[in-house]
Amino acid sequence: MTITTIGLDGDDTLWHNEKSFREAEQHFVQLLENCADKETIENVLFSTISRNIGLYGYGFKPFTLSMIEAANLICKRTIPSHLIKEILSLGRGMMEQPVKLIDNVVEILETLHKNYRLLLVSKGDLVEQARKLAKSGLADYFDRIEIVSHKDKAVYEELLKRNGLNAKNFVMVGNSLKSDVLPALAAGTFAVYIPYEITWIHEMADEPYNHEGYFKVEKIALLPPLVQAISSQNNGVA
Amino acid sequence: MTITTIGLDGDDTLWHNEKSFREAEQHFVQLLENCADKETIENVLFSTISRNIGLYGYGFKPFTLSMIEAANLICKRTIPSHLIKEILSLGRGMMEQPVKLIDNVVEILETLHKNYRLLLVSKGDLVEQARKLAKSGLADYFDRIEIVSHKDKAVYEELLKRNGLNAKNFVMVGNSLKSDVLPALAAGTFAVYIPYEITWIHEMADEPYNHEGYFKVEKIALLPPLVQAISSQNNGVA
Repeated sequence: MTITTIGLDGDDTLWHNEKSFREAEQHFVQLLENCADKETIENVLFSTISRNIGLYGYGFKPFTLSMIEAANLICKRTIPSHLIKEILSLGRGMMEQPVKLIDNVVEILETLHKNYRLLLVSKGDLVEQARKLAKSGLADYFDRIEIVSHKDKAVYEELLKRNGLNAKNFVMVGNSLKSDVLPALAAGTFAVYIPYEITWIHEMADEPYNHEGYFKVEKIALLPPLVQAISSQNNGVA
Repeated sequence: MTITTIGLDGDDTLWHNEKSFREAEQHFVQLLENCADKETIENVLFSTISRNIGLYGYGFKPFTLSMIEAANLICKRTIPSHLIKEILSLGRGMMEQPVKLIDNVVEILETLHKNYRLLLVSKGDLVEQARKLAKSGLADYFDRIEIVSHKDKAVYEELLKRNGLNAKNFVMVGNSLKSDVLPALAAGTFAVYIPYEITWIHEMADEPYNHEGYFKVEKIALLPPLVQAISSQNNGVA
């Protein structure tokens, strides 16, 4: 057995994402600075987003709706119309912004694509993820695009089944231990963690140091030799 | 050649959907009745939704964001906080409401499932469509769930390819001429139109009366004999 297929996460693995949420949060704090102090605004926004994840899911639209709800909780009684307008613009601006690729992504995908089947396995809003992929210019490197609403063990098992894959032929690569690494390992695949400079608190988890299917690299440029090594080792064992 | 696989749309084909948007619109008009007259409110909401479809896509979250934007355009200068709260609740209520199945859907899927591979081909928000499917209790009748951000010829071609299907083995069934019928016919498949009692203006299109792959039935209960007839005819021709 050998690695035939690599699953790659999108947000903060292939292109920058989390930063735009952090920037928008800072912008949101500025917009509301006449209503409350920074800490209160940040706390209300955070708790509103957390409360809404189950119902709204992930992405710019849930974030925009939660900003509006939080602004409404922070500014008592009435909200100036221009404030709502600015929050809607802030969300729209996030949706319309260009996609910035992580360093070396194009050449790495070019290299990997020659030897492996590549699947994009991204979590979030269908419209938003499809738009990011289109803007990224990376679509042609992928054999399949899998956009899912969440990533758990069952989702990875279904993905393997749908793509006719044995778990040991597959390695999942991403920046989230919680979404890309742990559930993929639970489904029996290999997993590579590439940390991003910031991690959203809802994606935090402990590293599975002792799991034999777990690997970590500091940047995507180190992925091709690692996958080759996993494949050889895997091959030797089977 | 014979029909092996049936694609079924979800919203307003298997379960009621459009009605809840119409009801929410009426509720929205009532909420804003102190700010403007009914016609103005309806017009501003409609034009806001239309302007946002390209960016936001379809579903409850886009609708909620557009209601807020429209309220902000209608109520000049300041918006009472309770109004924003009520609009957010209105959207949340739509997301949380139970799914009401169209008459006879369960027995029809039960029948079809015995003889055909069934694909759910629904358009909209991933989280929302997955939740509706779960609430509908219909998931087990489907061999594959395909949730797409839009439905055009290329999407149907990709769907056929992904499922290893010849176009003439597939019939697409739905209530939207624009999304379910015309693009499926363009991709070379058969298509069955089952009109719903109301059609959203963005889904309106002319019936392709003269297309030999086009069929229409008044209700889903009539689908099994029709599919069998298409299959026999198809078989005879090939």
